[in-house]
Amino acid sequence: MSENITPAPVESKELTSFADLVSLCKRRGFIFPSSEIYGGIGSCWDYGPLGVELKLNIKNSWWKAMTDREDVEGLDASILMHPRTWEASGHVEGFVDPLVDCKNCKARFRADKMDEAQLKAGECPTCGKKGTLTEPRNFNLMFKTHMGPLEESASIVYLRPETAQGIFVNFENVQQSARQKVPFGIAQIGKAFRNEITPGNFIFRTREFEQMEMQYFVKPGTDMEWFEKWKEIRLNWHLGNGLRRKKLQFHTHGPTELAHYARAAFDVEYEFPIGWQEIEGIHNRSDFDLRRHQEFSKKKLEYFEESTKERYLPFVIETSVGCDRALLAILCDSYRVEGDRTVLKLHPKLAPYKVAVFPLMKKPELLEMTDKVFNTLKKNFRTTYDESGTIGKRYRRQDEIGTPYCVTIDYDGVADNTVTVRERDGMTQQRISADQLVNYINDQMLAWKSE
Amino acid sequence: MSENITPAPVESKELTSFADLVSLCKRRGFIFPSSEIYGGIGSCWDYGPLGVELKLNIKNSWWKAMTDREDVEGLDASILMHPRTWEASGHVEGFVDPLVDCKNCKARFRADKMDEAQLKAGECPTCGKKGTLTEPRNFNLMFKTHMGPLEESASIVYLRPETAQGIFVNFENVQQSARQKVPFGIAQIGKAFRNEITPGNFIFRTREFEQMEMQYFVKPGTDMEWFEKWKEIRLNWHLGNGLRRKKLQFHTHGPTELAHYARAAFDVEYEFPIGWQEIEGIHNRSDFDLRRHQEFSKKKLEYFEESTKERYLPFVIETSVGCDRALLAILCDSYRVEGDRTVLKLHPKLAPYKVAVFPLMKKPELLEMTDKVFNTLKKNFRTTYDESGTIGKRYRRQDEIGTPYCVTIDYDGVADNTVTVRERDGMTQQRISADQLVNYINDQMLAWKSE
Repeated sequence: MSENITPAPVESKELTSFADLVSLCKRRGFIFPSSEIYGGIGSCWDYGPLGVELKLNIKNSWWKAMTDREDVEGLDASILMHPRTWEASGHVEGFVDPLVDCKNCKARFRADKMDEAQLKAGECPTCGKKGTLTEPRNFNLMFKTHMGPLEESASIVYLRPETAQGIFVNFENVQQSARQKVPFGIAQIGKAFRNEITPGNFIFRTREFEQMEMQYFVKPGTDMEWFEKWKEIRLNWHLGNGLRRKKLQFHTHGPTELAHYARAAFDVEYEFPIGWQEIEGIHNRSDFDLRRHQEFSKKKLEYFEESTKERYLPFVIETSVGCDRALLAILCDSYRVEGDRTVLKLHPKLAPYKVAVFPLMKKPELLEMTDKVFNTLKKNFRTTYDESGTIGKRYRRQDEIGTPYCVTIDYDGVADNTVTVRERDGMTQQRISADQLVNYINDQMLAWKSE
Repeated sequence: MSENITPAPVESKELTSFADLVSLCKRRGFIFPSSEIYGGIGSCWDYGPLGVELKLNIKNSWWKAMTDREDVEGLDASILMHPRTWEASGHVEGFVDPLVDCKNCKARFRADKMDEAQLKAGECPTCGKKGTLTEPRNFNLMFKTHMGPLEESASIVYLRPETAQGIFVNFENVQQSARQKVPFGIAQIGKAFRNEITPGNFIFRTREFEQMEMQYFVKPGTDMEWFEKWKEIRLNWHLGNGLRRKKLQFHTHGPTELAHYARAAFDVEYEFPIGWQEIEGIHNRSDFDLRRHQEFSKKKLEYFEESTKERYLPFVIETSVGCDRALLAILCDSYRVEGDRTVLKLHPKLAPYKVAVFPLMKKPELLEMTDKVFNTLKKNFRTTYDESGTIGKRYRRQDEIGTPYCVTIDYDGVADNTVTVRERDGMTQQRISADQLVNYINDQMLAWKSE
């Protein structure tokens, strides 16, 4: 095997359609359609062996960034909450899509997405009949179920459509038990559910999804200052995951775009193959949430500021990122076709495997050293092993799952205790001492930069 | 401050009722009643700042133990699955409690828990009237909801009552994408939901809970051998979390106790204040699950064994532990009242904070060194800081949340660059060089043993 090879660069093509990614994700075990043997189920997806590791790495990256701060506490609230929560939050009343039905062909449409002339004429876009459409009716996007043995209205509960409310109702419990002073935040990762009428685009819009939300409680008057701080912190988090700056843009909501609870709102958008789409929202929610919960629960949720002897309802700066969307952006951003290889140029800290170890051939002389190298690496990095097919084929497999370093053990290496390290992005090969391997890979990982 | 103190032992009292633990968990931020400001919701609980860290540590301990093995792959399947899944698994038909209603007072009872004479006489245990009870009717424990905009029978979906089925329906996808050979396993952590008629006992039986399940696929004929292996591995996991051997017992199911799918079953039981209760089940499920899913999906799920050219449906050895129950056992096992202190003698690897740092007083001379020590420790361990109240009070706070090491910075220490490390379980105090602190705590953590 020749030493210190740096191949000539080839043209690098980016992802142009989700279809290619969906196929790679299924083939390599990142993401499978849920319940696939039964024909799948409306836009639910299962994370396979590599997907679950990638997702865990993203969640850990977010959790560490949030809870390593002295001023942020973690929380894990239940998915099923008291139904009054959703009255206070406005979701029972306001979280709705207007739907019209065709009485002739039974098709159903979102009135706000229909052609206006058709809607006025009551003309069905499917069967074409006129005067067959019902008036628009509101359809609530929350999944409804019953708790306890009686299926009656008193027992209705909802699957939470967002994790945020679990934080608001626990504001006092967390503040007091953790002895925090305003300003401070509460961070949470968890599942949420929305009965979307039009889910789709792979894991971009699904009915079951995972949120990473942090609500930061501040003194009124300091809210816009904290809003600006959190914008910057959150941008840096996405860049720190390797997303390229040119594929991110930031959109400040104008006065007509703002949600009912928001004083200011700012989206982090990523350029997916389907165009620019929101992956995170940063919102100044004012005291809307705590005020509503105070009103609906009749419990005082005011904060007493020791130093000034003031009582007030804190304002909330919210940062809310879709875990699945962040993961989708990371996959899209790292996907390349270069010559005959497909490669995921994932940030090494996020890659499911950091290192792959190959014996050049299945010979006892090589396997003994391979074993030793593998066991040493495994103590330090998530490491995989492959002995089947040519080295070139093994490189291609690791490229497709984003493994940043491949270590090959050959006869020269057994003789002088060296290994060849092949790096994923530039496909360079370096021969180095086996004793230096762990340090070398550590250094390489720390030095990694996206394009 | 005197050096190297070892206090005389005092009587150590164990937890005798959940009430004391519930109170500590709320006060210190381990576990809050869900939606408490609205009066709570039927047996759902929220994990607070310390609870979420403890739970993450338990989940990480399990995940690492499982997926560091070359023969186990991870998975994260969705909670909402195709409804045919639950027909195949037997949950639509068989996952039921028989209920009777009183037509007079509307009370509802589980027929199998009622006094037999009362049931025969139709006598209501609440209002005492005779002949007012309905015949027992089956009530399904799965939460039911509708997917998509139409609330009709075709759109019924269930919240999964166990994570296992997400693994079975993905058997082929995982095996092929990960290129695994039988025997191999699939591990998963996730939420499950059961509409229990009689939830209770704190987080022991809740309607929303988290499971850690691993299904290990083996060649028929080798199943009992693997069953024995996994029994041993799983026992060691619980012991490795610090549970005392005398509080664990193992119960092998007799032929009349076995579930319909099980060839052999074995419970790990912990002695809670409410008595011996199951925290984990290890089951030989035969080929029941894959056979049923093959039948219901009409998809061949057989495995082709390359070396022997045989085709077969693998048998499944399942290990299934309730994450919340494991956490409850760990809290119960570590809870002690000793003299005037309450202490959680948690395994250091599971403790929410590993170290607390205290300046003896809030003086600039001390705060400067405290800051340096705190920042060094924080890079290595999850570390907290406390400067309020006497050192004794601060020890008590850390005892209650299970922090194994408290580091105090005093004037002597500033003079000679030393700190005092106070260890939680024996309350010994050691003065050591600040430069040795990280190594010292690492060594102490590795050497920790439960009683």
